[in-house]
Amino acid sequence: MPSYTAPTKDMQFVLHDLLKVSQADIPGYSELEADFTSAVLEEAGKITSEVVAPLNVVGDKEGCVLENGVVRTPTGFKSAFDQVREGGWTGLDMPEEFGGQGMPYVMSTAMGEMFSSANQAFTMYQGLTHGAASAILAHGTDQQKATYLPKMVSCEWTGTMNLTEPHCGTDLGLMRTKAVPQADGSFKLSGQKIFISAGEHDMASNIVHLVLAKIPGGPDGIKGVSLFIVPKFMVAEDGSLGARNGVACGNIEEKMGIHGNSTCVMNYDEATGYLLGDEHKGMRAMFTMMNEARIGVGMQGLAQAEAAYQNAVIYAKDRLQGRDVTGVKNPDGPADPLIVHPDIRRNLMDQKSFIEGARAFIMWGSMMIDQAHRGEDKAADGLVSLLTPVIKGFLTDQGYDMTVQAQQVYGGHGYIEESGMSQFTRDARIAMIYEGANGVQALDLVGRKLAQDGGKHVMAFFDLVKNFIKDNDGNEALKDDFLTPLKAASKDLQAAGMYFMQNGMKNPNNALSGSYDFMHLFGHVCLGLMWAQMAKAANEALAAGASDAEFYQTKITTGRYYMARRLPATGMHLARINSGADTVMALDAANF
Amino acid sequence: MPSYTAPTKDMQFVLHDLLKVSQADIPGYSELEADFTSAVLEEAGKITSEVVAPLNVVGDKEGCVLENGVVRTPTGFKSAFDQVREGGWTGLDMPEEFGGQGMPYVMSTAMGEMFSSANQAFTMYQGLTHGAASAILAHGTDQQKATYLPKMVSCEWTGTMNLTEPHCGTDLGLMRTKAVPQADGSFKLSGQKIFISAGEHDMASNIVHLVLAKIPGGPDGIKGVSLFIVPKFMVAEDGSLGARNGVACGNIEEKMGIHGNSTCVMNYDEATGYLLGDEHKGMRAMFTMMNEARIGVGMQGLAQAEAAYQNAVIYAKDRLQGRDVTGVKNPDGPADPLIVHPDIRRNLMDQKSFIEGARAFIMWGSMMIDQAHRGEDKAADGLVSLLTPVIKGFLTDQGYDMTVQAQQVYGGHGYIEESGMSQFTRDARIAMIYEGANGVQALDLVGRKLAQDGGKHVMAFFDLVKNFIKDNDGNEALKDDFLTPLKAASKDLQAAGMYFMQNGMKNPNNALSGSYDFMHLFGHVCLGLMWAQMAKAANEALAAGASDAEFYQTKITTGRYYMARRLPATGMHLARINSGADTVMALDAANF
Repeated sequence: MPSYTAPTKDMQFVLHDLLKVSQADIPGYSELEADFTSAVLEEAGKITSEVVAPLNVVGDKEGCVLENGVVRTPTGFKSAFDQVREGGWTGLDMPEEFGGQGMPYVMSTAMGEMFSSANQAFTMYQGLTHGAASAILAHGTDQQKATYLPKMVSCEWTGTMNLTEPHCGTDLGLMRTKAVPQADGSFKLSGQKIFISAGEHDMASNIVHLVLAKIPGGPDGIKGVSLFIVPKFMVAEDGSLGARNGVACGNIEEKMGIHGNSTCVMNYDEATGYLLGDEHKGMRAMFTMMNEARIGVGMQGLAQAEAAYQNAVIYAKDRLQGRDVTGVKNPDGPADPLIVHPDIRRNLMDQKSFIEGARAFIMWGSMMIDQAHRGEDKAADGLVSLLTPVIKGFLTDQGYDMTVQAQQVYGGHGYIEESGMSQFTRDARIAMIYEGANGVQALDLVGRKLAQDGGKHVMAFFDLVKNFIKDNDGNEALKDDFLTPLKAASKDLQAAGMYFMQNGMKNPNNALSGSYDFMHLFGHVCLGLMWAQMAKAANEALAAGASDAEFYQTKITTGRYYMARRLPATGMHLARINSGADTVMALDAANF
Repeated sequence: MPSYTAPTKDMQFVLHDLLKVSQADIPGYSELEADFTSAVLEEAGKITSEVVAPLNVVGDKEGCVLENGVVRTPTGFKSAFDQVREGGWTGLDMPEEFGGQGMPYVMSTAMGEMFSSANQAFTMYQGLTHGAASAILAHGTDQQKATYLPKMVSCEWTGTMNLTEPHCGTDLGLMRTKAVPQADGSFKLSGQKIFISAGEHDMASNIVHLVLAKIPGGPDGIKGVSLFIVPKFMVAEDGSLGARNGVACGNIEEKMGIHGNSTCVMNYDEATGYLLGDEHKGMRAMFTMMNEARIGVGMQGLAQAEAAYQNAVIYAKDRLQGRDVTGVKNPDGPADPLIVHPDIRRNLMDQKSFIEGARAFIMWGSMMIDQAHRGEDKAADGLVSLLTPVIKGFLTDQGYDMTVQAQQVYGGHGYIEESGMSQFTRDARIAMIYEGANGVQALDLVGRKLAQDGGKHVMAFFDLVKNFIKDNDGNEALKDDFLTPLKAASKDLQAAGMYFMQNGMKNPNNALSGSYDFMHLFGHVCLGLMWAQMAKAANEALAAGASDAEFYQTKITTGRYYMARRLPATGMHLARINSGADTVMALDAANF
């Protein structure tokens, strides 16, 4: 069975050496001293590796079972969920007035990575609840907040998000679920929602569904969509639970992975719902949480890659097969461990350099979320909004590929479910799809975000890269291995943006045909920037006489690998982008 | 449920427009007139799409079940296998004297792609039998051939290949299974083999295991390995079946995919075996079939991609979601079909251009196998031997990626098993692993094949590319879109080879660290060459007034896509290769 050890040391490096969080001018960040964050991360590491991770394979094997309208979660999930609740992990970044711990989002991201690595299916129960609670926090009335938030912050009640219907996924304007106004101000919701994660289960006394639906007579399409709170059990004024509402799970889907999470078909039959936010502004209410939700999914790509990588490393060190061509390394054994072989290292270094770069990227993005929300920093808000589709799309694509590479280290044993490596791959696959399929992320990036506020945010990003290179001009330790490749990659990104400007006007398909490549090109430049900054931080730590020199040396070597071996992908993406829409759009649909 | 339609038209294009098989100077090829191959392919298309494909999902869902030592195959497999046997499909390229049809291997490859697309797990029962029969054909005594081949060619008996043991996969020198000589010339085999595809099942009256084992007292390591025939039931002189031999299935593995094929742990307990070929030359006997076996697995990558692509296209045309940004395409519907969106097309064109290029590559490789075996052409033998790891490694990696892309077209529905898209991905994953994991293919390519016969074969490949470009100098239809990019890609490949020569001497790790990238770089150049040749063939057909102009135009457009959007990957691979072993090998194992 696979194991999991929380990468607390690496997270501490990102928080303190790279982001220097406790010195950042963001409300709440001064508390994030190294001792404090270390204590939080160690505790999170303990519960995730000891309680949550051992249930990962169990969840995959048993899955969820629907019987008489009740969904049974896998053995051990309920008791583990109790322990997670008791530890206060479900409301880490929620306001203290509702029972949360009021910590910055950046800490929630670090903790979230651990939970997701340990057991993605399990973690979704609290993840969805967090998302629904955030929506109520942002758009609910005081009464709604008082009624729902304390129970949701503690996960005594869990939450769901209901968007998709059988005939509409990305295109929510086609939605059919109806919400008919009632005399008492409530609504009656009828319709069918699909792919509802944690839609029904046996781990909470109530489930609070957030449901998108149309109020009859409202505007057509996406502009007529409103958001509603639909509790599974009605909630009385004193907070006690009443009758069952008109919502039921009709089926649970058989999926490629995340078997431990119940993916439900939810049937609404005149279910009582309460408007959350304004009428017909449901999409806006959803979108206020979109950046966090998408960063959260991007994090899952990294998290599955981390878990898979850890096990691939263990296997590569243990498994004896073949001999080092440059000389026997394990003379007393029948063969050398796999890790002596260059191609196994190439594989592992791809993973390691991606994972650590991705972690820095996502933590930086989370810090910007804090800057935007806690510090009301508009520039940070704009930049993280630009980078969100990159974090979501690039990190889940690459994270998935890395789980496939980790599986490959195991050879035939990786294909056998017993090794657990297939599960990482199957579980990671969903992150490329939900919360906006990655093609939609690319469309959001190129079709919307690039030009937002007159292109201000992408210019800010280029300035960031340019200034970093300029500020470190003359830093010989960074020059050849980091600054030069970063500059080249950034030039590719600018050239791609220029191509879009010059050709997208004539025909938007010229830009959209390159959107996916642009997302990846952008992602590589971001990781290149992260690695250059991390190398600088590591050099500084070494110069300051850091006790763990090997850790910092390893960081620099890993960064050099990324710059030399991963960053050259930018040229390929640029070439693809520069070929425009021509061959992409040329064929009649009939000729596919 | 997914559907499958055999791509007979495209196969005919490759056979006749591209390879011009009936004019080739290879024994047996003159029979391959277009009418004849069309009839064969149409029939193969019928049985695969109508009989074999509908069982693909069934096999995935039911899997194989081991009860009291007997493995039950999924519902319908047995009767379908009977139909395949009756149709004579199991011995298409086997000698007529043993009941085969004596057709060239190139036809077997075309047919094999269809079977593999339709149902990979099912097809492995006959595939393994074919492999085992080929070994007996190449190395068996006349008596062994007479005893086993007629029954194996008809698949009345099936076959297996037993190599792997729990502690040894790639490194077969560590093998422990023993074969003790008996007074009558037979051997008693004892040991455990794992990952034995089709090791036990209920579809054949006997199973002929080919088993690698060591004869005590022989040379150490791989040089002491011999190959044995171990029938499940003993075979009397008159061909009738006798007592059960000492071989039994101890367990079947739970796998990520190919559930319909039983992957067995086989326990040999003093099982009677007969030496096949020479003592201690077991690896050589295995290797004579290696090229075909590996090309067969490369074909599976293409085949799964084809099946997934077909369904992605259907979905992209059916599913209405969003509107074409350049103008509504389906004004009477609530939305436009997915296929109007540039990023969906980018996705589909990646698949289409890979699949058709890969098909040409693999058929060309198969034709070289025929040239080598039927025509005793040493140059063809050398070239296909060089290209075999590229066919296996590149096509299965890319084929897998394409099944992932096809799944992505379905959005959330692709993650639900009901759509069948997950199965293509899960089934395709194994092809990157078995018959030599792809890292081992890369090692074979760079560590062995490149330098074979003084590097003669790789020089022959470069000459082929150079001559094609030279011969078509002045062909304006090919120049910019095909010849220029092919030249650039080929230059990248040569530069990579030069890097290996200059730096691999100093330190072999400089070459081996780039082996995986070299395999992919080589693969892209091969597909670039195929596309340039196909574009030329299509232009010629158009110039000759071909009736189906749209087919040929589509071919050219698809080729232009590959050259513009896929081939630029060569630059990235070269950059990775040129960075050498430095960052790959720098870390101590402890620092991973």
